[in-house]
Amino acid sequence: MSKKRVAIIGAGPSGLAQLRAFEAAKKQGLEVPEVVCFEKQSNWGGMWNFSWRTGVGKYGEPAHGSMYKYLWSNGPKECLEFSDYSFDEHFKKPISSYPPRPVLFDYIQGRIKKNNVRDYIRFNTTVRWINYNEDTKKFKIVLDNLKIDKTYSEEFDYLVVASGHFSTPNMPYFTGIEEFTGQVMHAHDFRGADPYKDQNLLIIGSSYSAEDIGVQCHKHGAKSVTLSYRSKPIGVNWPEGITEVPLLKYFKGDTAFFKDGTSQKFDAVIMCTGYQHKFPFLPDELRLKTKNNLYPDHLYKGIFFNDTPNLIYLGMQDQYYTFNMFDAQAWVARDFIMDRYKIPTKAERRLDINKWLVENERLKSSHDHVDFQTAYIKELLALSDYPGFDVDKVAEMFKEWLKDKDENILTYRDKTFKSVVTGTMAETHHTEWMDELDDSKERYLFEDQKEKALEEKEPV
Amino acid sequence: MSKKRVAIIGAGPSGLAQLRAFEAAKKQGLEVPEVVCFEKQSNWGGMWNFSWRTGVGKYGEPAHGSMYKYLWSNGPKECLEFSDYSFDEHFKKPISSYPPRPVLFDYIQGRIKKNNVRDYIRFNTTVRWINYNEDTKKFKIVLDNLKIDKTYSEEFDYLVVASGHFSTPNMPYFTGIEEFTGQVMHAHDFRGADPYKDQNLLIIGSSYSAEDIGVQCHKHGAKSVTLSYRSKPIGVNWPEGITEVPLLKYFKGDTAFFKDGTSQKFDAVIMCTGYQHKFPFLPDELRLKTKNNLYPDHLYKGIFFNDTPNLIYLGMQDQYYTFNMFDAQAWVARDFIMDRYKIPTKAERRLDINKWLVENERLKSSHDHVDFQTAYIKELLALSDYPGFDVDKVAEMFKEWLKDKDENILTYRDKTFKSVVTGTMAETHHTEWMDELDDSKERYLFEDQKEKALEEKEPV
Repeated sequence: MSKKRVAIIGAGPSGLAQLRAFEAAKKQGLEVPEVVCFEKQSNWGGMWNFSWRTGVGKYGEPAHGSMYKYLWSNGPKECLEFSDYSFDEHFKKPISSYPPRPVLFDYIQGRIKKNNVRDYIRFNTTVRWINYNEDTKKFKIVLDNLKIDKTYSEEFDYLVVASGHFSTPNMPYFTGIEEFTGQVMHAHDFRGADPYKDQNLLIIGSSYSAEDIGVQCHKHGAKSVTLSYRSKPIGVNWPEGITEVPLLKYFKGDTAFFKDGTSQKFDAVIMCTGYQHKFPFLPDELRLKTKNNLYPDHLYKGIFFNDTPNLIYLGMQDQYYTFNMFDAQAWVARDFIMDRYKIPTKAERRLDINKWLVENERLKSSHDHVDFQTAYIKELLALSDYPGFDVDKVAEMFKEWLKDKDENILTYRDKTFKSVVTGTMAETHHTEWMDELDDSKERYLFEDQKEKALEEKEPV
Repeated sequence: MSKKRVAIIGAGPSGLAQLRAFEAAKKQGLEVPEVVCFEKQSNWGGMWNFSWRTGVGKYGEPAHGSMYKYLWSNGPKECLEFSDYSFDEHFKKPISSYPPRPVLFDYIQGRIKKNNVRDYIRFNTTVRWINYNEDTKKFKIVLDNLKIDKTYSEEFDYLVVASGHFSTPNMPYFTGIEEFTGQVMHAHDFRGADPYKDQNLLIIGSSYSAEDIGVQCHKHGAKSVTLSYRSKPIGVNWPEGITEVPLLKYFKGDTAFFKDGTSQKFDAVIMCTGYQHKFPFLPDELRLKTKNNLYPDHLYKGIFFNDTPNLIYLGMQDQYYTFNMFDAQAWVARDFIMDRYKIPTKAERRLDINKWLVENERLKSSHDHVDFQTAYIKELLALSDYPGFDVDKVAEMFKEWLKDKDENILTYRDKTFKSVVTGTMAETHHTEWMDELDDSKERYLFEDQKEKALEEKEPV
């Protein structure tokens, strides 16, 4: 019998976790299936592979990346550390708890560069369409090699969808927006705060993007930042220069009118109005249809599509846990594919899903959300040999992080946390976050040494 | 035998021309095939259906529209008039030669509203994938009803691809662009000049988009407009405030460095660097692979895909002629589908295509280009009963238009031309183009009457 074939869509953190999971099994001497990963972009990293492009990429495919310049981790790195590849192992020295994007991208790459996973990835290859044959239980995947403009198809026994859910903007309409005189864009197309210097900026939304883009634009010199929320304000202690107002009702010319009767002129609008779970390459009966939430329906253990469990979705949850959750998921998926982990009947799986859905409905506070996802991670960890870590300790860190942000949204990134993988305490960074306008890896990792070297050279 | 089925992709000017062609045959009492038109957007008009959205549409599909506010026809309307539906018939009075977008959109809609073509169009429906069966000679089309998130497939005997080729940006990379501090966008995402007021704007490109966006931004108050060309400048008489420079070499911070050694700081960059012919829904052996040019290879009579002539492409040429060319093409396509027009063998078709390709290679001046496309239109008109018009006269108008633009890029839109369909001379518009900042239909069509009424009311 020929080897089973596994297709992975996307070489971002989730897809790479899946590749890493198979590599780990191989190192244990196990026979692993044939794995092929399809990546639309020309490099791995998914969201972490920054691109200056917006709209479409080089080959005219919808741009994947929503990352921007000056993006620093908005949660402690100790909450996302790979338990099989620590920050210490990668950086050889303690670093701060909130590194900028290039530093985290470096970390993600470190683990996979140690293994030869690049060989499994077909870059510049997009998935056009997938058919599932109920009789043969095989997925026929139509692929498009963008670089040579050539389509072809291949069959697979398992399909792992790791294409993310922060790439397809959700953009509500507001009356008069077509006549608004300033720039209008979705956060997906935001590439950094520089163009908003000295501008009055309206941000629509009250989730992470709104908070982070708002604070970045404030830091980099926007004249004012106004955040408009639909149901609930973010409600942290905003500094002067950032205000929260209720929902936008309509635009007239350059002016926005809000639900509370106030109005203001703006130079630009950024819609931080979320993303759609979008799988245009799948027939609708195989599509995960969900809003962004902590436990999307139809996924057993958060990953197995209940109607067709050899279709696996990774990382489709709203996320507190990120890299370590993708790992825990990928290890379970691997064991299922390798027949080392059995799933129960469809009806039993449905009951298990329902249990989580009911629980999810009950959640009220952010602490409840953290605890809920913590319980989910614990369940996953019990199912595979992915190295365990002190999940309760991570949950505590999340709660401390929530408190820190609440107290001071401008300084929470100066705090430090202790690794649950190595026990290492993070360093206090050489520069306070509000004063650090350079997000390069060089500046972040080596600037203190340069400064020290300079000090030593200087005559007293 | 059941009726033949025809699928049309896109309800823009080309797709609508195809629907109109079948309606015209039906009015003559002929039996027409079953026609279904699939349109991704929620309304018809294609490019002429203005949307404030950029990036993706409401349902997360790549945005089709490249139109912007304050867009006025950049060629005389007398060069694109439908020969079966005149401007006189639609507006009931003479109008100027260069109307704004909403007025032209109104005109396009007028002809199709007269017929019940809306019933043939499935809106909010995108084509995901197409298979062609060599044995049955049928196209199996996978469709996605975006509104209800439901996929399905249907079979057709003919496929008319009318999805346009000005929607998928071509964006070259320039060293340092990822660090450029201002906004970077492609013309596809440009939605009007307002955000560039008082800014120093860099436009990369030397074709229609560059010329038109540059002039609009100048008109609406940009501090300076710099156009950077690759091989040849546009070379018209630029007014103060617009300059042309050679190719951009690289960016450093907010500064662009050009091939001639000069450099300048800019607030924003708009890439008017063209579009890709992109058909992601077709297997590559059915895809038209071409750069933008007056006679794309592989299309017999400019429309029949030579390998598979029941696959028809409309409007894929670089365009002097537009609406009337799409009509002439659609009428020929209709007659082929209805067995009223026969095409020769594949080898003979190849010879005919080659003849045009050789001719196209020889062209040097803009006048040569006009004459070449004029000859093509004449050939098309001879093949169907689409009402003939004086094509040589239209060619003369194109040449006059080229001269007008050359002489004064800011006033050429104030010129008037005579209709070859009705003989009507265009009106001089009530306001000179440079003074007209309002592009609404109401202002364009009725403002002179309002002003006259006001004058009459005013006491002397």
